[in-house]
Amino acid sequence: MSRQLKLGAFLMASGHHLAAWRHPRAWAGGGVDFEHFKRVAQTAERGKFDAIFLADNLALLGPPELASLTTGGDVLDPLILLAGLASVTSHLGLISTVSTSYNDPYLLARRFASLDHISGGRVGWNLVTSATDQEAQNFGQERIDEHADRYARAEEFIDIASGLWDSFDDDAFVRDKTSGQFFDPAKVHVLDHRGAHYPLVRGPLNLPRGPQGQPVLIQAGSSEPGKELAARTAEVVFTAQQTLAGAQAFYADLKGRLGKYGRTTEQLKIMPGISPVLGRTRGEAEDKFAELQDLVDPRLGIGLLAGMAGGFDLSQYPLDGPLPELPESNAMKSRQALFIELARRENLTIRQLYLRAASARGHNTVIGTPLEVADVLEEWFTQGAADGFNIMPPFLPEGLDDFVDLVVPELQRRGLFRREYEGRTLRDNLGLARPASRYAAGVRTQQSA
Amino acid sequence: MSRQLKLGAFLMASGHHLAAWRHPRAWAGGGVDFEHFKRVAQTAERGKFDAIFLADNLALLGPPELASLTTGGDVLDPLILLAGLASVTSHLGLISTVSTSYNDPYLLARRFASLDHISGGRVGWNLVTSATDQEAQNFGQERIDEHADRYARAEEFIDIASGLWDSFDDDAFVRDKTSGQFFDPAKVHVLDHRGAHYPLVRGPLNLPRGPQGQPVLIQAGSSEPGKELAARTAEVVFTAQQTLAGAQAFYADLKGRLGKYGRTTEQLKIMPGISPVLGRTRGEAEDKFAELQDLVDPRLGIGLLAGMAGGFDLSQYPLDGPLPELPESNAMKSRQALFIELARRENLTIRQLYLRAASARGHNTVIGTPLEVADVLEEWFTQGAADGFNIMPPFLPEGLDDFVDLVVPELQRRGLFRREYEGRTLRDNLGLARPASRYAAGVRTQQSA
Repeated sequence: MSRQLKLGAFLMASGHHLAAWRHPRAWAGGGVDFEHFKRVAQTAERGKFDAIFLADNLALLGPPELASLTTGGDVLDPLILLAGLASVTSHLGLISTVSTSYNDPYLLARRFASLDHISGGRVGWNLVTSATDQEAQNFGQERIDEHADRYARAEEFIDIASGLWDSFDDDAFVRDKTSGQFFDPAKVHVLDHRGAHYPLVRGPLNLPRGPQGQPVLIQAGSSEPGKELAARTAEVVFTAQQTLAGAQAFYADLKGRLGKYGRTTEQLKIMPGISPVLGRTRGEAEDKFAELQDLVDPRLGIGLLAGMAGGFDLSQYPLDGPLPELPESNAMKSRQALFIELARRENLTIRQLYLRAASARGHNTVIGTPLEVADVLEEWFTQGAADGFNIMPPFLPEGLDDFVDLVVPELQRRGLFRREYEGRTLRDNLGLARPASRYAAGVRTQQSA
Repeated sequence: MSRQLKLGAFLMASGHHLAAWRHPRAWAGGGVDFEHFKRVAQTAERGKFDAIFLADNLALLGPPELASLTTGGDVLDPLILLAGLASVTSHLGLISTVSTSYNDPYLLARRFASLDHISGGRVGWNLVTSATDQEAQNFGQERIDEHADRYARAEEFIDIASGLWDSFDDDAFVRDKTSGQFFDPAKVHVLDHRGAHYPLVRGPLNLPRGPQGQPVLIQAGSSEPGKELAARTAEVVFTAQQTLAGAQAFYADLKGRLGKYGRTTEQLKIMPGISPVLGRTRGEAEDKFAELQDLVDPRLGIGLLAGMAGGFDLSQYPLDGPLPELPESNAMKSRQALFIELARRENLTIRQLYLRAASARGHNTVIGTPLEVADVLEEWFTQGAADGFNIMPPFLPEGLDDFVDLVVPELQRRGLFRREYEGRTLRDNLGLARPASRYAAGVRTQQSA
């Protein structure tokens, strides 16, 4: 079979457009209604999506007056939601964003391994660092750590988690009723991690290796340290790219970094975000998009830009004037650069810029018929810009229903996308090998307990 | 209707007897098989149990050679497991043990509230503190904190969590598409906690109040600080009691402490653990119990006592000799006292003592016919010793199947136990009121943000 593209369904409660929940056909029940997510996840599985993908924040972001215009006030813990969805789906991958900044490595490694077990090997972790002071203040700190410190901590965190996931050899659990031996004590390994940010994490984890050995590791950071961490550890990279040329450059850059870590290009899948606004005709799609844009409250638009610019207040500048010079941010470095470049390249006013950001926060919005959307995906996929896409429906459930009913069959007709799942685990479907334990013969030599 | 008893099903992977997994009819697949837990949870729901109840440990306890004789090497994160079970049950309460020692209050408050949302109001939290150095060493500490410090930390933790659960008023989320107002910013409250153990937890939680307002709070500590914390905050107390007289004394003591915290006796349910070993005849039940006792490996029996005695090594003493004097433990204080008292009262040898502990770690084991077991439950329930019971099946699935098929109908015939669930939330079924928000009119006055 020819190379197949991979699809994630990036779910936000009402959808990705900043005004999604206000659209007359959008679901506006907020992020706490399990039945809504169950319906949407089952739609993604019907469409043979590799996975659903959840974002996360560890605070109510922005001042309450602004936040109150968004769905940011009700965001379920994503691993709890995915665990609930695991038992009402069978093949769909379950990917969650979780920050390393304020989680604990032992507890989080255990939660991911547990979800891998109960889902039969379908979990993925989108590793991020927290970027706002509002999150820091929920965890004992007035200010968020500097960007470089957050990444240094993340590097140590992922090494600990990865070590804990190998605590038991794959064949350690013999469960022999006659001898009374439940596991073989020679096949358990004590990590005994001692490091700069985590002084002691002894291990072992009190769980067998998961069906996938280790959860699939996803990263979204596109800064220099983000790209290096991704090249060393990530198996999927989620990225915001506005243009084919930019996506091609990012793709070549990141794939080119794998060699120095002894990895091949197939070991990392690059999946840009795409927000498809679909209509039976181009005009219908454009009308739908205009409807959404008209619903954006200017206060919220400016707040969105401020959030991406590290809290810089744009409200003193004229809405229909140019973007001022911005100080360098400690928050989302790569996303800030993307927006500044976009504003300069296209001479956008503040209003025009926030309306561009409103659609999918910097991800590429594609407005058109199912065939036109399929054309864009095919072009990016075949022209060295993507191994697949994280699909960001502008509003739910319609945005995903339409993609599954209209775009997926077209991708299948073109031989670009699966008609049936290749396997039962997320690794099977993404075409990623199950990693051998670090303690397995031929992998590397370490002491065992 | 007359006063009804409450029932929890305390689930361990293979069951509560130390040798459970080795019984020929016991399930020995370990604690990671979701289908096993799904079957057992659905049995509990068929039996109209108020809830299932999960224990937890944050380490592989004991030396690997001993641990390898037990099922302690595979214990799923309990909230992940319960979230998976939430979507395959409809009325069953979902109670998990979670330690305050190494969890973070913001993250844990969010996980419990999330589970309350996705389950439609069925979550309960059995609050414990971690008691072993092995757990401490997975979280940066060589030694566990002193008992009093752990409880001081727990007191602050529960106050933070409780405050965060009230972040939004019950009617805060208006979700008005026309005005664009998703929630009313006047109805969000910033906790701004600053304390000795948690210097800053600002809030608000990014979640609406759960269906239950706050999860049901359960406690199991029977030490002095444990009883005071329970009297102030707990709604259910789970306790190990060997005798009716002991259970009556505990019941009267704890209920008597409620007044000083302005609480009534109905606001706290006391549920001793009971491990019923059932047979069609008394002889059949006794044979089943003997079968289990014969499967206890002496190394494991001594290890169990050592674990309860804070790691004190008994292997140097003769198995069939008396229990030596033990140093006071920093670990499970009340459980240690229970075992020493039991050994002295009944003149037990070390072997006899560990065999008593092997059945249910100090909880009362009742061996007999369904009628005899029902008699004991009725006596404890009507004679001031219990409001209900946490049922600890000696091995699964048979132990729970038999209880549901044979004992539950007898309790129903006697008018002691429900035939249908009273409501959809755990509070509805336990007969516990939904707590008003601390910010609601008439509750108490605090500043809002």
